[in-house]
Amino acid sequence: MSISRSRVTHLSCPRCGRDHDHRLPQNLCPCGSPLLVEYDLDGLSGQASRGSIASGPPNMWRYADLLPVADPARAVSLGEGLTPLLPAGELGRSIGLPGLMVKDEGPNPTGTFKARGASCGVTMAVQLGIRKVALPTAGNAGGAWACYGAAAGLDVLVAIPADAPVVNRLECELYGADVRLVDGLISDAGTLVAQEVERHGWFDVSTLKEPYRIEGKKTLGFEIAEQLGWRMPDAIVYPAGGGVGIIGIWRAVQQLRAIGWMQGDGPRLIVTQAQGCAPIVEAFEHGWEESRPWPDARTFAHGLRVPKALGDFLVLRAIRETGGTAIAVSDQEIARAMVDLGRSGISACPEGAATLAAASRLRERGDLNEDDRVVLINTGTSLKYPNAMARALAPDGVGEPAPPI
Amino acid sequence: MSISRSRVTHLSCPRCGRDHDHRLPQNLCPCGSPLLVEYDLDGLSGQASRGSIASGPPNMWRYADLLPVADPARAVSLGEGLTPLLPAGELGRSIGLPGLMVKDEGPNPTGTFKARGASCGVTMAVQLGIRKVALPTAGNAGGAWACYGAAAGLDVLVAIPADAPVVNRLECELYGADVRLVDGLISDAGTLVAQEVERHGWFDVSTLKEPYRIEGKKTLGFEIAEQLGWRMPDAIVYPAGGGVGIIGIWRAVQQLRAIGWMQGDGPRLIVTQAQGCAPIVEAFEHGWEESRPWPDARTFAHGLRVPKALGDFLVLRAIRETGGTAIAVSDQEIARAMVDLGRSGISACPEGAATLAAASRLRERGDLNEDDRVVLINTGTSLKYPNAMARALAPDGVGEPAPPI
Repeated sequence: MSISRSRVTHLSCPRCGRDHDHRLPQNLCPCGSPLLVEYDLDGLSGQASRGSIASGPPNMWRYADLLPVADPARAVSLGEGLTPLLPAGELGRSIGLPGLMVKDEGPNPTGTFKARGASCGVTMAVQLGIRKVALPTAGNAGGAWACYGAAAGLDVLVAIPADAPVVNRLECELYGADVRLVDGLISDAGTLVAQEVERHGWFDVSTLKEPYRIEGKKTLGFEIAEQLGWRMPDAIVYPAGGGVGIIGIWRAVQQLRAIGWMQGDGPRLIVTQAQGCAPIVEAFEHGWEESRPWPDARTFAHGLRVPKALGDFLVLRAIRETGGTAIAVSDQEIARAMVDLGRSGISACPEGAATLAAASRLRERGDLNEDDRVVLINTGTSLKYPNAMARALAPDGVGEPAPPI
Repeated sequence: MSISRSRVTHLSCPRCGRDHDHRLPQNLCPCGSPLLVEYDLDGLSGQASRGSIASGPPNMWRYADLLPVADPARAVSLGEGLTPLLPAGELGRSIGLPGLMVKDEGPNPTGTFKARGASCGVTMAVQLGIRKVALPTAGNAGGAWACYGAAAGLDVLVAIPADAPVVNRLECELYGADVRLVDGLISDAGTLVAQEVERHGWFDVSTLKEPYRIEGKKTLGFEIAEQLGWRMPDAIVYPAGGGVGIIGIWRAVQQLRAIGWMQGDGPRLIVTQAQGCAPIVEAFEHGWEESRPWPDARTFAHGLRVPKALGDFLVLRAIRETGGTAIAVSDQEIARAMVDLGRSGISACPEGAATLAAASRLRERGDLNEDDRVVLINTGTSLKYPNAMARALAPDGVGEPAPPI
């Protein structure tokens, strides 16, 4: 194993087209865009095989040939990925989509899909000689980076709004992170991180401000393909806050096609957001290339409360290039969907539940068809959202009211 | 696929020796003992191979040849099992055990190892024609059975003490279980279940009162063997409440040896309990064949607050037959171990953390050696225990005090 194991050729800027050196730590392009990781796919297609994937480890590092790490044996891994793709035919039939499936990201370390990005991001930080990383978080990203940082022996600074869910703060503290409570919003937490980066040399691993979180999330796309016999479903529905996951899935599809591992059309990439914070849906509907900051963002799905995502233009490209769409759903619909998923034995966070609400609406308006195979991305377990569970159970006489946490 | 797929021959009583028909629903033996599932292992050893396991599904159903289900394709599965076996050398060196590993059961559906028992138990309930199951719970078992019951379309009644953690109650409600709050202890919840079973025909799936929960937990042992190249570690440390998991691991070791898949000695099976509720440790130290009810059981590790386990005599046999031992640790040691595991990137519930405290004490007193390969069973994620996390972070200046939940 050596550095030559990695097939990364360079980092590219999807906005201004400039290339960057992947052998150095990089944040944003000077033009302000996130960077993407580029590979020598021609070299790969001759050597790796889909068959060899099946004999790899039962986690996301089975796709190491398409990941940036030089030596997979040194990956900072806690068993993330290879999560179940659950058939949900009965639930699907109730909304006219018998081919419904749920990619359930709850059974990941730290309980959410953020583990994928943190595993790859922390591995690359170590590889690049970075010893201390900082990020703002509204919750789950902080927990994941604190966890993987602890596993790797990195220092991790997490700036978190003082009113963020207590569970998220506690897990960061348990992992030994330097937790800074911020009186304000996630944007204020971001300001604190920027100051720490400037003054004390922390490396900024905020969403999309380093290139490797996308690469970890990309494995979601690889897994869906492998689990469906190297075919893609007709549509994937994703709840977009920062949008890293859908950018990753889009990259995965492009790469699998480039190396000839995947045939057929699809998937259409569909994004859902909450009606109280739907900047990407708005931009999609208006034909804008990027979103406009959403004023007074409100939704109980904390992960969707992102007024303007750094990678919004990439999310919009992914939707349009794949013939997808975008749709906003109400908090009440999300709450109802949490209960409907629970009744099927699936523990969904509010963000994940939004995808069921979206699929139902898209079916009603004819944007999804009865014979479509549709994969919902449930980004995490409900266990980190006791308040949301209580809320979901309270209205409409759907369940017993639960006491406040 | 047909019923003949199952290699079960009968159910046996480990106390009085009586056999029972596995083709009928069964609870306890009339003598009061839990029942064990017996297989035609001679028939198996000629047919199945370790190699075929590796090409099976990436969950506990890869061991279907050694599970009771007639048709693995009909298993009620949500992706449980094949959890990571994490090397923990650095943490281990800090307590003189560089060969330390952690079997991390957090990345399971519902966040704990209870998913294994529920997956197998619910699958067998369906196979046997049972439509409604009831159990008392202090927390995690209720969540797991409610979840798998929902996935299978069974009615699930969960009786839970009113002062149980809110998260546990909420998840049961989200899965649509019939949740009965009981003013009292888990024993009072058990009384309610017994009444419901008697009056309204619910099938009793309380801990060890049906034979298949052990079979699901057994896969923990299979996985540890497979993940270590079909060798066992020198010791496995397990936090015993009801003791189902350690009984399952013991059965797994016996069966792997019987079919010739595992060579070598070991593992020593080691049980830990909390000093505030240590009936099995007491019985082990006194040479008793079963435990005596522990008065005034107290520990913040809720899963260990079992004053007298129905299968205590089996746990004691497992310890003694394997040359193991039993040790009690304090709540303060457990809290400290939660933090130590967190600092290594492992999210441990209090019960799981107790195993680290136990290993440390056993090493100190010479009961474990420096070159021993020791596997700790972390039975679940810390995320379901916000109060315990806050407590672990509060004392000794180990972390920042956290607000009450």
